[in-house]
Amino acid sequence: MRTVQIYDTTLRDGAQGEGVNFSLQDKLAITQRLAEMGVDYVEGGYPLSNEKDAEFFVRVRGLDLGKTKVCAFGMTRRKGCSAADDPGMKALVDSGAPVCTVVGKTWDFHVTDVLRVSLEENLAMIRDSLTYLGSQGRELIYDAEHFFDGWKANPAYAARTIQTAAEAGARLVVLCDTNGGSLPEEIAHLTTEAIAALKSYGVNVGIHCHNDCELAVANSLAAVDAGAVQVQGTINGLGERCGNADLISVVANLALKKKTGYRVLDGGQIEHLTELSRFVYETANLHLRSNQPFVGQSAFAHKGGMHVHAIARATSSYEHIAPERVGNERRILVSELSGRSNIMALTTRHKIEQNRELMDRILAQVVKLENQGYQFEAAEASFDLLVRRCVGTFQPHFERLKYHVEVSAEDGDGLVTEGTVKVRVGDQVRHEVAEGDGPVNALDAALRKALYGVFPNLCQMRLVDYKVRVVNSEGGTAARIRVIIESADEHDVWGTVGVSENIIEASWLALVDAIEYKLFKDELKAANLGSSFEHAALPVVPASR
Amino acid sequence: MRTVQIYDTTLRDGAQGEGVNFSLQDKLAITQRLAEMGVDYVEGGYPLSNEKDAEFFVRVRGLDLGKTKVCAFGMTRRKGCSAADDPGMKALVDSGAPVCTVVGKTWDFHVTDVLRVSLEENLAMIRDSLTYLGSQGRELIYDAEHFFDGWKANPAYAARTIQTAAEAGARLVVLCDTNGGSLPEEIAHLTTEAIAALKSYGVNVGIHCHNDCELAVANSLAAVDAGAVQVQGTINGLGERCGNADLISVVANLALKKKTGYRVLDGGQIEHLTELSRFVYETANLHLRSNQPFVGQSAFAHKGGMHVHAIARATSSYEHIAPERVGNERRILVSELSGRSNIMALTTRHKIEQNRELMDRILAQVVKLENQGYQFEAAEASFDLLVRRCVGTFQPHFERLKYHVEVSAEDGDGLVTEGTVKVRVGDQVRHEVAEGDGPVNALDAALRKALYGVFPNLCQMRLVDYKVRVVNSEGGTAARIRVIIESADEHDVWGTVGVSENIIEASWLALVDAIEYKLFKDELKAANLGSSFEHAALPVVPASR
Repeated sequence: MRTVQIYDTTLRDGAQGEGVNFSLQDKLAITQRLAEMGVDYVEGGYPLSNEKDAEFFVRVRGLDLGKTKVCAFGMTRRKGCSAADDPGMKALVDSGAPVCTVVGKTWDFHVTDVLRVSLEENLAMIRDSLTYLGSQGRELIYDAEHFFDGWKANPAYAARTIQTAAEAGARLVVLCDTNGGSLPEEIAHLTTEAIAALKSYGVNVGIHCHNDCELAVANSLAAVDAGAVQVQGTINGLGERCGNADLISVVANLALKKKTGYRVLDGGQIEHLTELSRFVYETANLHLRSNQPFVGQSAFAHKGGMHVHAIARATSSYEHIAPERVGNERRILVSELSGRSNIMALTTRHKIEQNRELMDRILAQVVKLENQGYQFEAAEASFDLLVRRCVGTFQPHFERLKYHVEVSAEDGDGLVTEGTVKVRVGDQVRHEVAEGDGPVNALDAALRKALYGVFPNLCQMRLVDYKVRVVNSEGGTAARIRVIIESADEHDVWGTVGVSENIIEASWLALVDAIEYKLFKDELKAANLGSSFEHAALPVVPASR
Repeated sequence: MRTVQIYDTTLRDGAQGEGVNFSLQDKLAITQRLAEMGVDYVEGGYPLSNEKDAEFFVRVRGLDLGKTKVCAFGMTRRKGCSAADDPGMKALVDSGAPVCTVVGKTWDFHVTDVLRVSLEENLAMIRDSLTYLGSQGRELIYDAEHFFDGWKANPAYAARTIQTAAEAGARLVVLCDTNGGSLPEEIAHLTTEAIAALKSYGVNVGIHCHNDCELAVANSLAAVDAGAVQVQGTINGLGERCGNADLISVVANLALKKKTGYRVLDGGQIEHLTELSRFVYETANLHLRSNQPFVGQSAFAHKGGMHVHAIARATSSYEHIAPERVGNERRILVSELSGRSNIMALTTRHKIEQNRELMDRILAQVVKLENQGYQFEAAEASFDLLVRRCVGTFQPHFERLKYHVEVSAEDGDGLVTEGTVKVRVGDQVRHEVAEGDGPVNALDAALRKALYGVFPNLCQMRLVDYKVRVVNSEGGTAARIRVIIESADEHDVWGTVGVSENIIEASWLALVDAIEYKLFKDELKAANLGSSFEHAALPVVPASR
């Protein structure tokens, strides 16, 4: 079984992605986690580009990373100076990283028109840079920028650039599809050509793909099949433009799907891919992509009643692998397209599936609410409360006596928004008023003001997202409004839903469910501290969602 | 050059995606847009599954779709009944769709363990269903569910299922990678086998992939290279679990990247892919995926200093295609500006594209509003008013002096919602009050009450859809709210947008734009009765949109 090395560049190429920013602490935490996963190489940054990257290489020496090697990234020396005098080279040496990854030009057009040097000078830049870094005792990886475009334009020159790198001491030549425009058949063909060109030097090739044609994973696999020994990519495919090859999918495909069978990550850790993916999203403060292959929350979610029915008969029916193999889990969604089998599967957590009569009652209730415009697939917390109501374990924590909200706009003056809420909590009646940015915000503020004294844990809870839709747009003005609210505390994220002809009332219903769910969840957590019952009873979604 | 048919199943398989819900109006609007794009087949739904899908097939007959064919989806008849008696078959016939797409079992394990019928009975189910629907004069497409898994398990039986479909009148056999677990080399190999198995029947094959291994696009291309004549997929890759093959990427790759050269969408429309992608996201009320290949807002965005520098020297340096070819645009500076080409295209209607200074002013205004959270892709009427304001041809028909809205809920009593509006129309001041189902409805009612006397044509106008979105969900409570309102009269449908921290104010702004647009539109119509100037001057969207 061939071994394929995994080279992670989340911290360098991934950080080029729009909206991606890692603190020094983030970078160290991700490096540690990647090392625990058995990733062969972690590219920590470009030490010349900023202070943070330079500091990273100092601090990373203090971590125990096992067999994982840290790489510093840089470019070949500038034109017309010696490698020893080049600030980029100096930064690479100063980084103290055991591996230096140097990128150089392969495409003649880029050499002459972008770099504006002669084709010979470019070869000298590659040679000098690698020879110098090799003399400093570093392991050398050479990234051949625009390899595929370059080879298509001028194969003889492209071959000379990578042969020069091999002669100058590169341990590995990485073929980069920098613009992400190549197709799998081109990647396979030119990887074979590159391997032939480097054969006499005893140097292997790696692959580095971008996703501009939605083919980065397929291209990486094609290169490995053609003989590449290393795949470079990023966790979750973060990266400039459309991102890099997603190492999550690359690793899962190599380890689990390929007939030939490849050994990656030292043969283990595949079952931690979901955890790794969410850890990186969380650390980068990015939303996770729920339909992400293998590790997304929807990757093994079933909505169509037909599918769910089949899954109940044989779990492999509509799943290409068992979700546990990548650390993910199956989810059954409640929706208008779902039949009884979806509900059955969801309520399994409440351990009431034996109670036919109760199941029928829940089903009838769901059908009734769906006909009114409710939808539970993004509102599992509301569904959970619905089940509680049917089971009889729902006791509201507060009772609404009334609310009032008003918004005024007068030319010259701005907007005035005020909400008042009167609720009964236990034997107390609380009547509070608050202003807000909008009517829902004002009601939320007034309601919290009324409840904080009794339920201080509500302080941890915040609104994350708010979505509104007209449920039946045919109905015109009397159409129903569906509001979905996503809330979060430091542990979990949960969705709730409300439907009414009135947007304020629909929002109020979703808001009340969000608060009730938070209160139930915390009570359950307190009651079952350390017990495993908690997960069986409530669909607790990881906070990374 | 080989032609490849594009078969869109956004409205059926795409609607299985988590969080995807289309109203009837959404489905009709998307069908219209797909037909304008030249998509060969649009699968409208599964008429047996729900009322909305059944109603769709009635309403869609009223649209002018050119060469695009509408397909109804269903399953082979149930076991142990005749096709004519089967409710699913009946629903397909009743749909009146010219094309019926019937899915049947290929995998012996699914036949015996999920469907629980004999292998022979499954063949009879395929044969009877297609024969019956053929006798009703429908064009037949047969979807071979789990084709690749089925063939791997039992090639002889898998071949018999598709041969049975061919014998029974299927015009095309579509090979479905239902679980999304196949690799490109398997797809290529088994597509070749299927073509061989169907050769003597003169029946071609299509391909239907899911993205569970992040390979759906690569798999679709591999099948086409192996001889498939049709690709099934969804816009933006919407769909269950990890989604279907994204037709945006499939079409762009086939039309622009493949050396062999394939003809798709009648040879045109590729430059509208970005617009189409965003239209579907907006209609489905889903967030765009900024790093989506070809059409994402980041797909041609350049962040790395090195790249930006190179781009300045030669635009092809870090771009695999020119972004205009798919209707997208390059973004180098930090700018939220989206759809510059849309803006150019839209202002063309005003015949002001020669006025550079004016164009710059409009562009600056759009950038400013987009930074505030505005988005004009689904709000062409608001954009039109914006252009009028910049051009100086905007004269408001009324002026707001103030509004006030309040909502009260008291237990026992229902909700009370009241809106008051004070406006100046000409030299009159009108102050009106009205109740409504919700605050926006009440404001709308009061405003109309104030305007009807002067503008009786407002009676023809109605609100069709209302969508609300938090623009920046990171911002927490102070996030901005974007409201999109769709309005219609007997001739047209138009979208308007409003943004504010307050949902009432955002709704008011969109409402006012909707009314102003209606009034301008009708004036223009009256002034240019019978002239062709009308369409050049105002982006009149067909009422079916």
